[in-house]
Amino acid sequence: MKIGVLTGGGDAPGLNAVIRAVVRKSLLFGHELIGIREGWRGLLDNLYEPLDRNSVSGILHRGGTILATSRTNVYKEKDGEARVIKNMSENGIDALVAIGGEDTLGVAAKLAKSGVKVVGVPKTIDNDLNATDFTFGFDTAVNIATEAIDRLHTTAESHNRVIVVEVMGRHAGWIAAYAGIAGGADIILVPEKPFHIDEVCDIIKKRHEGGKSFSIVVASEGAKLMTDDNSDQDGSFILSSMKTDAFGHVKLGGIGNVLAEEIEKRTGYETRSTTLGHIQRGGTPTAFDRVLGTRFGVFAAELVEQGKWGYMAALKGNEIVAVKLEEAVGQLKTIDLKLMDVASTFFG
Amino acid sequence: MKIGVLTGGGDAPGLNAVIRAVVRKSLLFGHELIGIREGWRGLLDNLYEPLDRNSVSGILHRGGTILATSRTNVYKEKDGEARVIKNMSENGIDALVAIGGEDTLGVAAKLAKSGVKVVGVPKTIDNDLNATDFTFGFDTAVNIATEAIDRLHTTAESHNRVIVVEVMGRHAGWIAAYAGIAGGADIILVPEKPFHIDEVCDIIKKRHEGGKSFSIVVASEGAKLMTDDNSDQDGSFILSSMKTDAFGHVKLGGIGNVLAEEIEKRTGYETRSTTLGHIQRGGTPTAFDRVLGTRFGVFAAELVEQGKWGYMAALKGNEIVAVKLEEAVGQLKTIDLKLMDVASTFFG
Amino acid sequence: MKIGVLTGGGDAPGLNAVIRAVVRKSLLFGHELIGIREGWRGLLDNLYEPLDRNSVSGILHRGGTILATSRTNVYKEKDGEARVIKNMSENGIDALVAIGGEDTLGVAAKLAKSGVKVVGVPKTIDNDLNATDFTFGFDTAVNIATEAIDRLHTTAESHNRVIVVEVMGRHAGWIAAYAGIAGGADIILVPEKPFHIDEVCDIIKKRHEGGKSFSIVVASEGAKLMTDDNSDQDGSFILSSMKTDAFGHVKLGGIGNVLAEEIEKRTGYETRSTTLGHIQRGGTPTAFDRVLGTRFGVFAAELVEQGKWGYMAALKGNEIVAVKLEEAVGQLKTIDLKLMDVASTFFG
Amino acid sequence: MKIGVLTGGGDAPGLNAVIRAVVRKSLLFGHELIGIREGWRGLLDNLYEPLDRNSVSGILHRGGTILATSRTNVYKEKDGEARVIKNMSENGIDALVAIGGEDTLGVAAKLAKSGVKVVGVPKTIDNDLNATDFTFGFDTAVNIATEAIDRLHTTAESHNRVIVVEVMGRHAGWIAAYAGIAGGADIILVPEKPFHIDEVCDIIKKRHEGGKSFSIVVASEGAKLMTDDNSDQDGSFILSSMKTDAFGHVKLGGIGNVLAEEIEKRTGYETRSTTLGHIQRGGTPTAFDRVLGTRFGVFAAELVEQGKWGYMAALKGNEIVAVKLEEAVGQLKTIDLKLMDVASTFFG
Repeated sequence: MKIGVLTGGGDAPGLNAVIRAVVRKSLLFGHELIGIREGWRGLLDNLYEPLDRNSVSGILHRGGTILATSRTNVYKEKDGEARVIKNMSENGIDALVAIGGEDTLGVAAKLAKSGVKVVGVPKTIDNDLNATDFTFGFDTAVNIATEAIDRLHTTAESHNRVIVVEVMGRHAGWIAAYAGIAGGADIILVPEKPFHIDEVCDIIKKRHEGGKSFSIVVASEGAKLMTDDNSDQDGSFILSSMKTDAFGHVKLGGIGNVLAEEIEKRTGYETRSTTLGHIQRGGTPTAFDRVLGTRFGVFAAELVEQGKWGYMAALKGNEIVAVKLEEAVGQLKTIDLKLMDVASTFFG
Repeated sequence: MKIGVLTGGGDAPGLNAVIRAVVRKSLLFGHELIGIREGWRGLLDNLYEPLDRNSVSGILHRGGTILATSRTNVYKEKDGEARVIKNMSENGIDALVAIGGEDTLGVAAKLAKSGVKVVGVPKTIDNDLNATDFTFGFDTAVNIATEAIDRLHTTAESHNRVIVVEVMGRHAGWIAAYAGIAGGADIILVPEKPFHIDEVCDIIKKRHEGGKSFSIVVASEGAKLMTDDNSDQDGSFILSSMKTDAFGHVKLGGIGNVLAEEIEKRTGYETRSTTLGHIQRGGTPTAFDRVLGTRFGVFAAELVEQGKWGYMAALKGNEIVAVKLEEAVGQLKTIDLKLMDVASTFFG
Repeated sequence: MKIGVLTGGGDAPGLNAVIRAVVRKSLLFGHELIGIREGWRGLLDNLYEPLDRNSVSGILHRGGTILATSRTNVYKEKDGEARVIKNMSENGIDALVAIGGEDTLGVAAKLAKSGVKVVGVPKTIDNDLNATDFTFGFDTAVNIATEAIDRLHTTAESHNRVIVVEVMGRHAGWIAAYAGIAGGADIILVPEKPFHIDEVCDIIKKRHEGGKSFSIVVASEGAKLMTDDNSDQDGSFILSSMKTDAFGHVKLGGIGNVLAEEIEKRTGYETRSTTLGHIQRGGTPTAFDRVLGTRFGVFAAELVEQGKWGYMAALKGNEIVAVKLEEAVGQLKTIDLKLMDVASTFFG
Repeated sequence: MKIGVLTGGGDAPGLNAVIRAVVRKSLLFGHELIGIREGWRGLLDNLYEPLDRNSVSGILHRGGTILATSRTNVYKEKDGEARVIKNMSENGIDALVAIGGEDTLGVAAKLAKSGVKVVGVPKTIDNDLNATDFTFGFDTAVNIATEAIDRLHTTAESHNRVIVVEVMGRHAGWIAAYAGIAGGADIILVPEKPFHIDEVCDIIKKRHEGGKSFSIVVASEGAKLMTDDNSDQDGSFILSSMKTDAFGHVKLGGIGNVLAEEIEKRTGYETRSTTLGHIQRGGTPTAFDRVLGTRFGVFAAELVEQGKWGYMAALKGNEIVAVKLEEAVGQLKTIDLKLMDVASTFFG
């Protein structure tokens, strides 16, 4: 068989570990491999590169993806599906390994229904993908964020400051919850549990009255902050200075800055914010992410070997298992509230 | 209630996270805490220190244990159990949280049977404890070993060398398997699967004949290497230069050096060995270990609150659950062979 | 003698190494120590804490300053100098070790002229202080920024992006130059050498036309960017969207975002920006900074012992020497242009 | 001109930064480059590889040397010099950039005298090369050793142990002194200053009597330990269990283990040793080493351009200057005793 491999969506540390494992295991099975560049775009536009043992040598510890990536969605392109099927046929590509998140796997699921031989590997740095306990990249992001929080602790303490750290997590608070617990944050704000600005300020004030001179607040970029500055009939509003979405929730991005301003205004404590941004998704993956990526890649090669089209690799406890692509898409995996209970043990 | 907290056995990154979480959660429940120094020895000899919110401030990211530790076993000391019960009573200690491995938890299990109010938290850097998917400290050790292997890669490559890295793992190969996979090792040797020296040399030779000029071998300190240099009736012997235990297996320690010598002798390739030793168990824990330690600690405080004596916290998939102390002791958790299959995909 | 120790201005990794060294060496000389909290404010308001061998145990590797810091300037406070002299006298403080930058050392220099027994230790994370080759904290900041650039490289490459990284450096480009060279940046922008937006875009375009699909731009927060969008009599203007200072230069902060927008607009390449912010000054100092801080601290204790009031420790080549406090203040140490030549070898 | 580049001796982090800088700067000057593999061996045996802009892309942060290395000495090979001259001529190699230590630069110096057009770049991870303030690789090794000492601190403290850490440094104690000071070691042993075992034990005992329960000893592999266990006419002997060289000094390697045994025997404190070994020279270089390597490489290309044969790059204070190759060889740069004074401030 000639197997095409592609990576779609945002990059995540561990992608190269997956690619390397798919290639090496598939070569042992006797197959031929071909790299498809820039996700689904490469299959629509015939962007290929050779993929053999040499091309995956020395990439295990490298961040990013040697195949590059894009957010192109086959079903949003004219005749997308037909072009994919035609290009696969014309280039002798028998099967696909699609490595990506919600969107990439959603395309894979639809293609599988149309008869394309495709298996998946789940990827989301936010860890919010259903059907797998963990995704690679998440552990690396959490460690980077935790190290940043460690650093901010010493500077906050020296200057008697409140510091707000904005981390990744648009729809789920996994990174904030894990990095916040690991970094000893005094408050953790996640999209799953909207917070009132007064609650935040009360915790900080109580803490400072108790003798502490600094506080660390960790917030997901998608955290939902409420206020009643501009009261209306139900007395609950989003800060007017923030852009809000259709549900009255703060729009993504900028929450860290807004929060810092509001805290300083309401408590009088000097407050600064830091947005970690893109450094959370780059660079050398942790050991956990390299092992998980490798196991996913080996498993995906086995799925291809067994002809289990429409399935993807997933982590359940300590084991890698096969789940239907549909199970991974359509619903977010939000953090469990038990985890927030653990976190709030340390608030204040 | 007045709750005593102790840590026993070897130290592991994350112990302080557990202590901090037990203290803070128990304080929220309204209990009083007392630190017992140096494991069970502290309870036999009345070595205590105050344990309040201040004493656990700023320790989350610190390696080691603020309570110190020892390998003292209550049941190997004269009148051990009676002294423990008497000392608890005289010092008004109502309940215990015992944090430790096989040995420490074994003592806790026996004490519980004798009516002592005790709960446990599992700890082993080797990850070989039954009844929990992972223990804290393991992830840190794996990351340290992986970083070391990354470093050795570049020097091996520059000098056309074989490098043998000896990592922790007396009875189970978890650290070798994880760090070996994460570090892209060419051969991984674990206690669970004895290896013949000729197999090792064959893989290296095939690799070098295929154009590679260096190789990395990762071996658990308890790896079992066979040879037939000194043949006898069954033709299978341990290298005569190694010290062997009663079962004819290589004794712990020194396997790295022996292996390096044998490989150089048999293949002619320049070979060096490095034993990582104590650096694997010290220093700042990874985010994973801080979160796991914290969750274990919070859960242990809840076990105490609920009076679930004789139980310990354990990780199953993504959840923390209660298991009987007996389940954790008496049997090692060895690595599963599927993991070795994954690893051997990359051999040669 | 009773020696007071204080830290002023922004915190920098290595401050605790200095404090520890001053204390331990002065104790060996037979002196008594006292900690003055929050810089000069502590001396104005009598904020003290005991400082003995125990209080500096275990702080060598910790970021921040155990004495806390502030930006209070004695000579901007009512009766500042008189209060300092009175408080020293009333509290039996014979001499001062003032650890800080331009501002803190400027106060120390004036106090010395008024007869106060004071010696200094230079501190600036930006490395822009005259009279010393290097200051502690700078090496740590450079390593943090370099690691961030390493991480951004892999994500830039995977997404075919230009990434702009804004690092510290208001008046001098040391951090940008060092981290930019170390991180393999394609363009480095420093305050010392204003750049025209067209030059920046030309380098990026030439690079991409040469086959590269990504670029990394490192900019000091005080980098001065010119444009001629809004031409006037001299044809050279700052981007109108930027806030400019009296000299028409971009105001500090925000340069990263503005730059990213302009590059994307003019080149058509997807461009992102990341501002490293406070994480650059926190956390565990590098070995270099711990050694430099320790040597500075030991030397400052020797200056006190020798009664060399009005002097400070400075690094010249490999040696620590005494220089007059006045030499350190009044003039910035900007980067030498030879260093920029080295950097620009790699542009494009 | 066609310029050959080679790396000789042990590898050091930063070698690839030098190679990259030599290549890119020389290409800007309009020259052609060729890589010579495995040091001088490659020139004797005609082992070449192409060296252009692409071959040095993405290597800045990689440890080791892409050109590989060996310890082959031209003047210890039959007709060595003649073969070098003949091979250069036959392959059109006009000039050489030799990157290496004492031995490699010694060969370069002799070749220069015989009319070969060669310039040098100094390299020694031990920092013991004359004529330059620092060499690249040293800072990385010191940071690795410091991080290891940090880790050992927490485990030593938890177990009430003395831990001996053996670091690199055969003839000079730079790594031990820097890492020891940075890691807060309680005793530092260097080749420059032989120590009596009783002094070591006295410091440890005094420390433990003063209330500390652990100690960290850092020793260079070439540290010289004296004892009088086996007294003879001059009453001063090396431990009989150690292998000694012609001068009665302990032979390189093994000092850590011997020291740990002796300390435990004489003080009764549990003592362990760790030998850091090869991990000190591998892996990603620090920012300092990347910048220094890059500056050295750019400067070497300029030396070639200017025809300054027989010279090498050297760091003096903050500047890169040209020094004669002879100045670098023939004499070791040992640590200055002022540095040991700083270190011993913290002993006990």
